[in-house]
Amino acid sequence: MKTNKIDHIAIAVKNLDESIKVFNELTGKVPDKLEVVEEQKANIALYDIGGSHIELLGGTADDSPITKYLEKKGEGLHHICFKVENIEAKLEELEQKGFRLIDKTPRIGAMGKKIAFLHPASANGVLIELCE
Amino acid sequence: MKTNKIDHIAIAVKNLDESIKVFNELTGKVPDKLEVVEEQKANIALYDIGGSHIELLGGTADDSPITKYLEKKGEGLHHICFKVENIEAKLEELEQKGFRLIDKTPRIGAMGKKIAFLHPASANGVLIELCE
Repeated sequence: MKTNKIDHIAIAVKNLDESIKVFNELTGKVPDKLEVVEEQKANIALYDIGGSHIELLGGTADDSPITKYLEKKGEGLHHICFKVENIEAKLEELEQKGFRLIDKTPRIGAMGKKIAFLHPASANGVLIELCE
Repeated sequence: MKTNKIDHIAIAVKNLDESIKVFNELTGKVPDKLEVVEEQKANIALYDIGGSHIELLGGTADDSPITKYLEKKGEGLHHICFKVENIEAKLEELEQKGFRLIDKTPRIGAMGKKIAFLHPASANGVLIELCE
């Protein structure tokens, strides 16, 4: 099954407000959306750049997965997300082909979308998210 | 000045042929373009995903910048590239705003496009390329 588009590229940042100032200059615009994802203890700033998005990703608590990631690896590119038409079918297809899945069934992520993560070990060290 | 789109996301890989097999499955297609960039001692596989691209990036020699990067940091997300309408003007604008530039003037990159890199220190640890 083909991926339709690159939905977003996520960048882990320590201070979301400061990073928004930087990316406002880089992109020449302000974020199209700000959101708190309670489940992930993350806050997010989204820039729509020609239909794909830059997602700045900060942690909202010391035990947030993003805060822990930042402590270990520092700021930088965190994951990419491909949009597919049928996420369940794509997950099944990839599992059959030997891909290691973090989420075997989709869950609800930012913007209320169905999402699932693949393990970076399956994709040259890249954390890949699928969304529908 | 606004960025028009995310031109590509580059992923550094050790074995381009093996990674192409992985990304063929992930994207559901084969690369739209294969190219050797002599100046960078790099070989590239490009997947067009809804107008933005995944760029798999391998080194062609031990002294390739990509090979050196892989030795230090391993495989994974390497940089993102924003497309702008006037790269010289955007570089000037960013330099005036205090961004650190790797290339103060554009050079010719893959596909014969004018490109320039910004220093990751200026963008939350993310290596950013501009292209026109």
